[in-house]
Amino acid sequence: MKKTLIALAAVAATGAAFAQSTVTLFGVADTAVTYTKTGAAKKTSMTTSGLNSSRIGFRGEEDLGGGMKAAFHMEAGVNTDNGTGAGTNTNNQAAGQIAGTTTVGSQGLTFNRRMTASLMGGFGELRVGRDYTPLFWNQTVFDPFGTNGVGASQANAAANPASLVVGVRASNSIGYMSPSFNGFQVQLQTFLGENASNDAATGKNSGSGNGLRATYAQGPVSLALATAKYDTDLNVKHEGTNFGASYDLGVAKIMAVYSQDQDSTSGVDAAKVKGTLIGLTAPLGAGVAKAAWSNSKQGATVDTDKFAVGYVYNLSKRTSIYTTFANTKPKTGDKTTGFDLGLSHSF
Amino acid sequence: MKKTLIALAAVAATGAAFAQSTVTLFGVADTAVTYTKTGAAKKTSMTTSGLNSSRIGFRGEEDLGGGMKAAFHMEAGVNTDNGTGAGTNTNNQAAGQIAGTTTVGSQGLTFNRRMTASLMGGFGELRVGRDYTPLFWNQTVFDPFGTNGVGASQANAAANPASLVVGVRASNSIGYMSPSFNGFQVQLQTFLGENASNDAATGKNSGSGNGLRATYAQGPVSLALATAKYDTDLNVKHEGTNFGASYDLGVAKIMAVYSQDQDSTSGVDAAKVKGTLIGLTAPLGAGVAKAAWSNSKQGATVDTDKFAVGYVYNLSKRTSIYTTFANTKPKTGDKTTGFDLGLSHSF
Amino acid sequence: MKKTLIALAAVAATGAAFAQSTVTLFGVADTAVTYTKTGAAKKTSMTTSGLNSSRIGFRGEEDLGGGMKAAFHMEAGVNTDNGTGAGTNTNNQAAGQIAGTTTVGSQGLTFNRRMTASLMGGFGELRVGRDYTPLFWNQTVFDPFGTNGVGASQANAAANPASLVVGVRASNSIGYMSPSFNGFQVQLQTFLGENASNDAATGKNSGSGNGLRATYAQGPVSLALATAKYDTDLNVKHEGTNFGASYDLGVAKIMAVYSQDQDSTSGVDAAKVKGTLIGLTAPLGAGVAKAAWSNSKQGATVDTDKFAVGYVYNLSKRTSIYTTFANTKPKTGDKTTGFDLGLSHSF
Repeated sequence: MKKTLIALAAVAATGAAFAQSTVTLFGVADTAVTYTKTGAAKKTSMTTSGLNSSRIGFRGEEDLGGGMKAAFHMEAGVNTDNGTGAGTNTNNQAAGQIAGTTTVGSQGLTFNRRMTASLMGGFGELRVGRDYTPLFWNQTVFDPFGTNGVGASQANAAANPASLVVGVRASNSIGYMSPSFNGFQVQLQTFLGENASNDAATGKNSGSGNGLRATYAQGPVSLALATAKYDTDLNVKHEGTNFGASYDLGVAKIMAVYSQDQDSTSGVDAAKVKGTLIGLTAPLGAGVAKAAWSNSKQGATVDTDKFAVGYVYNLSKRTSIYTTFANTKPKTGDKTTGFDLGLSHSF
Repeated sequence: MKKTLIALAAVAATGAAFAQSTVTLFGVADTAVTYTKTGAAKKTSMTTSGLNSSRIGFRGEEDLGGGMKAAFHMEAGVNTDNGTGAGTNTNNQAAGQIAGTTTVGSQGLTFNRRMTASLMGGFGELRVGRDYTPLFWNQTVFDPFGTNGVGASQANAAANPASLVVGVRASNSIGYMSPSFNGFQVQLQTFLGENASNDAATGKNSGSGNGLRATYAQGPVSLALATAKYDTDLNVKHEGTNFGASYDLGVAKIMAVYSQDQDSTSGVDAAKVKGTLIGLTAPLGAGVAKAAWSNSKQGATVDTDKFAVGYVYNLSKRTSIYTTFANTKPKTGDKTTGFDLGLSHSF
Repeated sequence: MKKTLIALAAVAATGAAFAQSTVTLFGVADTAVTYTKTGAAKKTSMTTSGLNSSRIGFRGEEDLGGGMKAAFHMEAGVNTDNGTGAGTNTNNQAAGQIAGTTTVGSQGLTFNRRMTASLMGGFGELRVGRDYTPLFWNQTVFDPFGTNGVGASQANAAANPASLVVGVRASNSIGYMSPSFNGFQVQLQTFLGENASNDAATGKNSGSGNGLRATYAQGPVSLALATAKYDTDLNVKHEGTNFGASYDLGVAKIMAVYSQDQDSTSGVDAAKVKGTLIGLTAPLGAGVAKAAWSNSKQGATVDTDKFAVGYVYNLSKRTSIYTTFANTKPKTGDKTTGFDLGLSHSF
């Protein structure tokens, strides 16, 4: 449920008619107590976004006539355990990135989650600004835990490490979303690193990239394929492809993701990062039960399994209490046990 | 007076009924011209929050049925003289703190004043996130100047020095507020420093603490006792207790605070900080007159008196003009004279 | 068109009447693809504010009775290409400034564009906080491109270099706007650098200044004169005067600006910066065509011409597509070619 602000047009001196438009204020406050244990290190924390990503945002649409609409969407991440905002990235490169640390710059609110203006019509939607990348959608949509909380998919964690600044969203992007043709839709995105053509140190294309996502949804079936190429740094290219699928059996919805990501430096390929997830969600009482196994592999040395189970108890359509338990087991080194108990409220 | 946004439930595909809910946008813009003189240093400034703390916030409630409610509250401090936001703290320790300086990080808006989600019912309120500490409430509620502006209580200034990062609010907190039993209420809070159990350098408990506040309000009488223990740093513990009382005689409301705070480092106690305030507020014309004497003492060397008088002229229930004059006199060193002339507008 | 939130007064325990008030949420999302070429350096970027400055804000008014009103205005700049906010300045000096860089501190939202509280009545408006300077108004109002995008006036660029922190706005200001007397209005502003009287290193008056603007508007004629003096640093004073005029012929509106700015260090005058602009806007089809020539000169070495043309196609009163082409030619060095293609949406 979203708040819709009743909007009355200011009556201009030259016109007497009232027009009507809407701006919607929306958000999520999701806070959990989280316990983690990795070897001897135990920690109890308050965390944010264990079920849904905490945020506050403003969005609106204007009818332009002739089936056309204009729209804006400004959405800021909020860490509800301490009131900080979340950093964004100005040029899709490490230099424009704010680390998720306790440093000063990560404190202010930014529209890091989405900052777009759109034109929409029969042709689909043209969207400019900062937005999700096509590659990320499949990692989160087909994860029962939505890449949030202690249960977040290991496949995504490996495919989108902190070092990959466009793993989730890209700034300076132009996107196109087609309308649905019998359940088929296509999403295209290109984004810019904004370097000068003669910037030999940074590389002309660093921070630039393209992505494509094709989806099919019909009845209980949902399928999605995405692929993308980025220049992540001077002479460093990243290629990724993933596929997600879900089928709703009624008693449960089963889902899976397979992803493959690869860096190459000056044309030399690194070992591929391969991610796999198999999961399900099932209505249970006044809520939903969830389970997922996910894995990431890279070459001979990295092979990490994660198993997660959770339950969301809905107090209403907008408010839930949830708990998640997860076990992450790398091939070598200490396993990590995580536990979330949280309250999520949407507005 | 607060803005209440009319909220219309999006009509979900599965249901036709409209539900109603509210989000409130609220705030304060309080700006003053402030003159201070300490020895030879005179300064004229524009300042913020001379009467009420400047802020902008969003809050809302949802009725869950059965006497239960869910709520959220996001409130950002604003420096209305220059448009900066105010920093918050991520881990209740100095390392997670943003100093109140002109450095870059103190500029962005954060929900530093309060960022909470709540469940409320007959049992009281359970509140998680960033919130006031029980110990601070008495320092501000029983100060005629509300710990704001040049007249702010000296008792609080000494009890909550800049070095005590949880002097006013704590992040990562879980709080409980009881319902009122014949005027009695209890408030409990625990908060987390979020260190690993084997973090020998920082200390497992640094930034963690607990607080309790018990209040009694009946007719003209208001009494409140608060006590708290924090681990402020590795091997540094802080203990505080304070008591506040007010009595409304009709022609004037008299109030007093006594507080005692003590650090101990590796078990060795520092000298206690003792704070005292005696004050009054009195309706006068279309406004309120205020006066307070406050004092802080620590050991044999620190003994600072402050005397403050002020008048608030109400242009409406939401808008006031105010002036405060204060004189701060330490045992040794220059005295400080301060003067505020300000405009405070709530929305 | 602005959103006006329906505001219902909370019914206080002591009163039963409902009062009504409004808070307005407003903003602009303006994003462009920008191409620039300076010598061998070509760059394609997403940029913000090519036509109108991107922002989000909250403002409201309260009727105090007797012809008096109180008001607040909180307005934050937003970089819509990446979701960052814009920095403000705490003391009108370089030390309180946030550079427009990719550093962490420039990321958070601040009310950098305007953060004011006002009292208004028959006497005019008294406004305190952070606001535009009188000197800037003429540079932007009489520029067909509103000092935005690749076509922004060269006269303003030279008069208000990045080193002049109060070139556009000043914090810690008190302003007065007179009512209109037969088309004549006066605006006064004083602002404070907030240094101690005995601060020999910074200088008592650094960051302080005063400005005056007088305007006349009647029918097709608009005239405006502004003058200001600032202490920009220790022993560095800045003086500026400018004049703008426009005449609406119906088929086109012609406009011109002349400005003169001068620094003096310890009483020694630097060469004057002289700015000139001649421009026009003309209704054309469902939009507006624009053209401007502007120039800045300083002494014998600096003499830069800029020629800009543009067209704004209005999809509605709130939404436009625009394009601008500009050519900047300094006396020596490479010329710069710039091109904007953007979408601007107001709400």
